[in-house]
Amino acid sequence: MNRQALVQAIAAKQSYLCVGLDTDITKLPKHLQQHPNAVVEFNKAIIDATKDYCVSYKMNTAFYEAMGLKGWAAMEETLHYIPDTHFKIADAKRGDIGNTSSQYAKTFFETLPFDAVTVAPYMGEDSVRPFLEYDNKFTIVLGLTSNKGANDFQKLIVSNTSNDNNLVPTLLQGNTAEYLYKKVLATIAQWGTKDNLMFVVGATQASDLTAIRDIVPDHFLLIPGVGTQGGSLEDVSKFGLNKDGGLLVNASRAIIYASGKEDFASEAAEIAKQYQVEMRGYLQ
Amino acid sequence: MNRQALVQAIAAKQSYLCVGLDTDITKLPKHLQQHPNAVVEFNKAIIDATKDYCVSYKMNTAFYEAMGLKGWAAMEETLHYIPDTHFKIADAKRGDIGNTSSQYAKTFFETLPFDAVTVAPYMGEDSVRPFLEYDNKFTIVLGLTSNKGANDFQKLIVSNTSNDNNLVPTLLQGNTAEYLYKKVLATIAQWGTKDNLMFVVGATQASDLTAIRDIVPDHFLLIPGVGTQGGSLEDVSKFGLNKDGGLLVNASRAIIYASGKEDFASEAAEIAKQYQVEMRGYLQ
Repeated sequence: MNRQALVQAIAAKQSYLCVGLDTDITKLPKHLQQHPNAVVEFNKAIIDATKDYCVSYKMNTAFYEAMGLKGWAAMEETLHYIPDTHFKIADAKRGDIGNTSSQYAKTFFETLPFDAVTVAPYMGEDSVRPFLEYDNKFTIVLGLTSNKGANDFQKLIVSNTSNDNNLVPTLLQGNTAEYLYKKVLATIAQWGTKDNLMFVVGATQASDLTAIRDIVPDHFLLIPGVGTQGGSLEDVSKFGLNKDGGLLVNASRAIIYASGKEDFASEAAEIAKQYQVEMRGYLQ
Repeated sequence: MNRQALVQAIAAKQSYLCVGLDTDITKLPKHLQQHPNAVVEFNKAIIDATKDYCVSYKMNTAFYEAMGLKGWAAMEETLHYIPDTHFKIADAKRGDIGNTSSQYAKTFFETLPFDAVTVAPYMGEDSVRPFLEYDNKFTIVLGLTSNKGANDFQKLIVSNTSNDNNLVPTLLQGNTAEYLYKKVLATIAQWGTKDNLMFVVGATQASDLTAIRDIVPDHFLLIPGVGTQGGSLEDVSKFGLNKDGGLLVNASRAIIYASGKEDFASEAAEIAKQYQVEMRGYLQ
């Protein structure tokens, strides 16, 4: 799915909701736990129940890998069940040296035909470029994450140089200093375009969104952390929406575990619908 | 395998070589390419041929994931073939918010019983902690990587604060400024001990090793980038070895693709032996 199709889907559905299929086998409703293919059954029911209210599904690979081979198979089967009308994200947070990142790009764009994959920025340009080489696929780089640990490194103050020489004079120019995550956004925005690059921006820090939109006004932002992680959908929408929508707001646990009982799917639909109705208001 | 056993293996074998099983199915010798389980056959032959010269094996998950289900099965089968006398590393470069990192820790410490997994630092403390909670397992955090992109962010100059207030005054204290990767090393060293924490340090930057040893004198360092990536084993050993050895030097392509023909295993053994002989010299 390309950018234009995503923008159209958002306009048509009046929703920028992404449902996170972070399915933990230990948290499934009791009646499903003995099912031989419980995770896939659960995911299919969630997809059927929520697909009218969302434009995207995101699978965090960790939950599938933890189950080994069976989990990898469940990820594959779930992926193929998601309608092609929906934008499919592998939340894998991968990244390695160039020739190895190429293997990850192959994994999530060919072997598993996702539309997008999340990528960690720490290893720099040659770790990100192989993902950007695919047409009509998106690389979603971590900018500012929604967890407490985001403060440890992402909010360090960096000088606007990576040059070994004359470090102190550059550092002394106060106006070149910024948060690491802003430097990451500004640098990586130059490696791709709004047609192949997005950023993860943690919703619990909505006050930072204005500054982020100054750096990347046109790119889509994937916003985790609304719902269980405590971000405000109103703030995120107010400061993050652009003329194309430009947001994918993810909710995982708040939707898929809305009920732990046999009505889990209808309850998930109810919560997803509440998000959609709220989003429709912000889009108008 | 715990730290003491690793230290003993290094002393006994007079080697701190890690062989990287980054097996790309398109690069296998021709006579193996039609084998129904080619990657595993190749890996087993490499392990048989090199195990006397190395103390560790590292599998980069990217090469296995790119093959999908079959690749994940090959990784599992290879892992179980590696002798328990050897330190087994999943080079996965994972990291996510706390509850999700727990799933990755489960993946590589339980579902796949590796001794260690590589972890990306960008998401901070709660993304690293879940890995450190396992006894006799090692978290190997990316410090300074061996690729060109290491300069993009890892060598940014950061001020020694993550505090929102009074940024400029702190920034102006030149003596608190340092490379991001040094801040990462110093910060993360406080979260674990030499018994559960190691760092990835790119060998192509051996001149930085003295400064790195000032920050983490006792931790093991995993050094990629010797061989094909151009690092000098002599420099790495001179500046990186400590009283326990304290190094795992990885070579992948230089060993596993030493020959692309039927003699690939014996040629791999020959190169691994050359490394071991050179290492014996540096250990004495």
